[in-house]
Amino acid sequence: MSTNRKIELITSKENECIKRLKKLHDKKHREELKAFLVEGVKAVKEALDYAIEDINLLIFSQEASKKYEEFFSRCISLLNSGKLKRIVQVPEKIFEHISTTTTPQGVLAECSFFDKELDVLKKHNRVVVIDSVQDPGNLGTIIRCADAFGFECVITVNGTVDVYNPKVVRSAMGSMFHVDVVREKKKEELVGTLKKRGFALYVTTPYGDVDISKLSIDDRFAIVIGNESRGVDVAFLENATKKVKISMPGKAESLNSAVAAAIVLYELRKK
Amino acid sequence: MSTNRKIELITSKENECIKRLKKLHDKKHREELKAFLVEGVKAVKEALDYAIEDINLLIFSQEASKKYEEFFSRCISLLNSGKLKRIVQVPEKIFEHISTTTTPQGVLAECSFFDKELDVLKKHNRVVVIDSVQDPGNLGTIIRCADAFGFECVITVNGTVDVYNPKVVRSAMGSMFHVDVVREKKKEELVGTLKKRGFALYVTTPYGDVDISKLSIDDRFAIVIGNESRGVDVAFLENATKKVKISMPGKAESLNSAVAAAIVLYELRKK
Repeated sequence: MSTNRKIELITSKENECIKRLKKLHDKKHREELKAFLVEGVKAVKEALDYAIEDINLLIFSQEASKKYEEFFSRCISLLNSGKLKRIVQVPEKIFEHISTTTTPQGVLAECSFFDKELDVLKKHNRVVVIDSVQDPGNLGTIIRCADAFGFECVITVNGTVDVYNPKVVRSAMGSMFHVDVVREKKKEELVGTLKKRGFALYVTTPYGDVDISKLSIDDRFAIVIGNESRGVDVAFLENATKKVKISMPGKAESLNSAVAAAIVLYELRKK
Repeated sequence: MSTNRKIELITSKENECIKRLKKLHDKKHREELKAFLVEGVKAVKEALDYAIEDINLLIFSQEASKKYEEFFSRCISLLNSGKLKRIVQVPEKIFEHISTTTTPQGVLAECSFFDKELDVLKKHNRVVVIDSVQDPGNLGTIIRCADAFGFECVITVNGTVDVYNPKVVRSAMGSMFHVDVVREKKKEELVGTLKKRGFALYVTTPYGDVDISKLSIDDRFAIVIGNESRGVDVAFLENATKKVKISMPGKAESLNSAVAAAIVLYELRKK
């Protein structure tokens, strides 16, 4: 087939490309190479649709190129038209070696970092700030909810799990390509910028005085989601416009932290 | 100390009591012995507060009896007053052997099954039906939300993960002691009983025609939460009073299934 002439086949773990992909499992190397991995058909499709210029490389296992034939053909067209830089095929064994999951689908992309700086705030009105969330699944779920409920920007604070961690990317299910991501900012700088730009600052705390369902929502606001056990840092609490809580009429004293975040974002959704 | 004279120390894995606790990790043996394990300080406290008569046995590791001294003393008092049947102390090694987690707190209870039959429906107005949820963490999270939002009863349908699975119990964080639990019912029988008892039947589906935030809620209703990928079974869809969905103004096409369930239960919370 003349159309796929540019697809490379790599069969050795010692190949530089494979070694590089394996390195991207670790934050240290991601920071060094300014690149990360996106795995799974759904997430890679979102990357193609929303961030094709950030994709350095697509990897298909040989089985996956057959199983997802239509998707594979589309990628070949994008390669031939010059929109996609590079496609590599690998045997299953090599794919398992570079995969970030235990049950790989056989589709993976290497993307360049695409996080933004705080100046993107000037064009946004609905922002989620994530303060020290530790569990990658929780962070991914929060990014997915932020997207679903019409937020435009997600900002992580220093001490939060890396947004480019493969588990975060996986549980975000492509949503990180739909919002502007700003990462690992200092609390003080962030609070200052938000204030200067006229954002109302909402924080979630079990000791909040406003029931989230009764909050009158400002046109421009940032909602702060805190750490799973410690909650939101004092730097945000002290500068909060409103301290909000979720009313719980039953006997449970608390909610799972990802669930609590999801409900808060749901209540603040774009209407 | 004369007060703790009845506390037994067990130091061998071959002890019958230890063997029995180990067996309760498996559903097959749980069904046979009609008992299950509750692990962790928080969950065991809830069991003591809400279901002390169902506790057959409390187990403390020797370290935990010191670390949670006040709690341990309270348990001894309950033992001496005859409210608690039995307390056993074990060395750390034995506790690790019977623990259901990788990071044990050293506190565990064996409880008798306490699920109810469908006739409890006569005294309830707000019921959650769980149809074929597979992930134990998701089921536990849903039970915790059901409790938090003032539901009185949780019913699982055949094919749903076991409510007595240690991971379900753990992620429910004691909430299973706050609601009536009915388990593993046949769909058809359940739908018939709900109809006969005058419950409105709400089902959640992405193809729902009513936005959950705009639903006018009946005095007596059951909400059906479906399987993570297949959704709700046709037996419920065909008998639904209302098919509800969550509005998502953003670009994400779906939500994490535990998150979607949580938002639905939140919207239907007791007000």
